[in-house]
Amino acid sequence: MTQQSAYELFYWPGLPGRGEFVRLALEAAGAPYIDHAQQPGGMAAMQALLEDPALPRPPFAPPFLRDGRLLIGQTAAILLHLGQRHGLAPAEEEGRLWCHQIQLTIADLVAETHDTHHPVASALYYEDQKPEAARRAKDFRDNRIPKFLGWFERILAANPAGPAHLVGHARSYADLSLFQTVEGLRYAFPRASARALQQTPHVAALAASVAEWPRIAAYLASPRRQPFSQNGIFRHYPELDG
Amino acid sequence: MTQQSAYELFYWPGLPGRGEFVRLALEAAGAPYIDHAQQPGGMAAMQALLEDPALPRPPFAPPFLRDGRLLIGQTAAILLHLGQRHGLAPAEEEGRLWCHQIQLTIADLVAETHDTHHPVASALYYEDQKPEAARRAKDFRDNRIPKFLGWFERILAANPAGPAHLVGHARSYADLSLFQTVEGLRYAFPRASARALQQTPHVAALAASVAEWPRIAAYLASPRRQPFSQNGIFRHYPELDG
Repeated sequence: MTQQSAYELFYWPGLPGRGEFVRLALEAAGAPYIDHAQQPGGMAAMQALLEDPALPRPPFAPPFLRDGRLLIGQTAAILLHLGQRHGLAPAEEEGRLWCHQIQLTIADLVAETHDTHHPVASALYYEDQKPEAARRAKDFRDNRIPKFLGWFERILAANPAGPAHLVGHARSYADLSLFQTVEGLRYAFPRASARALQQTPHVAALAASVAEWPRIAAYLASPRRQPFSQNGIFRHYPELDG
Repeated sequence: MTQQSAYELFYWPGLPGRGEFVRLALEAAGAPYIDHAQQPGGMAAMQALLEDPALPRPPFAPPFLRDGRLLIGQTAAILLHLGQRHGLAPAEEEGRLWCHQIQLTIADLVAETHDTHHPVASALYYEDQKPEAARRAKDFRDNRIPKFLGWFERILAANPAGPAHLVGHARSYADLSLFQTVEGLRYAFPRASARALQQTPHVAALAASVAEWPRIAAYLASPRRQPFSQNGIFRHYPELDG
């Protein structure tokens, strides 16, 4: 890694959301970054970039990351970039692709989690789509959480290097993202997640171990870490937890 | 590109679906491939791989692609791989990342399209979620189609190399995927798509031009190209088109 100026992260203020997957990678890398979501004027700075007609490669939506003259949107693309820069993914191509494949599957799970409370439209309030949310959340609890966590369990068990990491024998952004997703599911669906995690002990163990990586432990204890809330992707509505 | 044996594509038979994004890249590359979805026993071959306990890196879901000893799942990851192998993405890192970022945004649009007819659960029939589908489709028509197509229009207009391609001055898998998505939206939402495409002439022009790339034109005229139907992601239910 060459010496560089601080990264700049742009995301919605007041919630961990998808921005948190980027924060965790930056923290695990020990990379300097400015988190505009936690700076005065951060929201305006984000909106200005989203709407800047002079940008040749504008992001579609937050989060996005500035790395020098590069502006990168889409969480998985940001992590592909950071993983390569900071040793948070294998250097060889096959491993890098596998790590990315896992991340894309986590992204699918995250999108489905969001849609449990917003199955009709992101632009509407939860209160305006409660019956639809109740039906979608039931399928999510009964079928989707077990299917996704079951796949993570399977690939951890099948890892020739052992179940300590998702990709080979080393830490990767996939480990970090799975940790965050498990944390989010535990917050949003405490009962359904507890049931699923009892069946997926490698997943539970990996999530617990990531919280103890020294840089991650320091981050989690810092004010930089934001709590889950009713504004984010992972929301706790008891009626959706069955 | 080194000489290699044929790729093998595994996907659901009888529908273009997400497999079609992979097919289009393989066809544009002129790469030899076996499409198991169109072979006898293809479904069983796909299921066997999905459930094979000996695979160290099993895919989560179709489509997936075999390239020698590599088995790759997640459409965007497959395209990342093929794009690099076959010159369907820039060779330099920034352009490759931008191409991937566009693909991930297309993937989000494709997932949202699917959820217009399955807003509650993929495992249920459309007929079991019609009221929810009606509400979701309205938001999709009024807000999401214009927002996504508007972003593609914006990045085509902002491309310093001109609006003929999404990434620089060359053909990429992003062009192919946008073509397929526009085709799918036109099938599923003819009225809403026509309205949105009137506002996004660069998108309409790019889609029309991709259909004339010689290898794509040959493919579209061949029996290898499957029509859209009521079994896929892009389904035409007139009541959802408003």
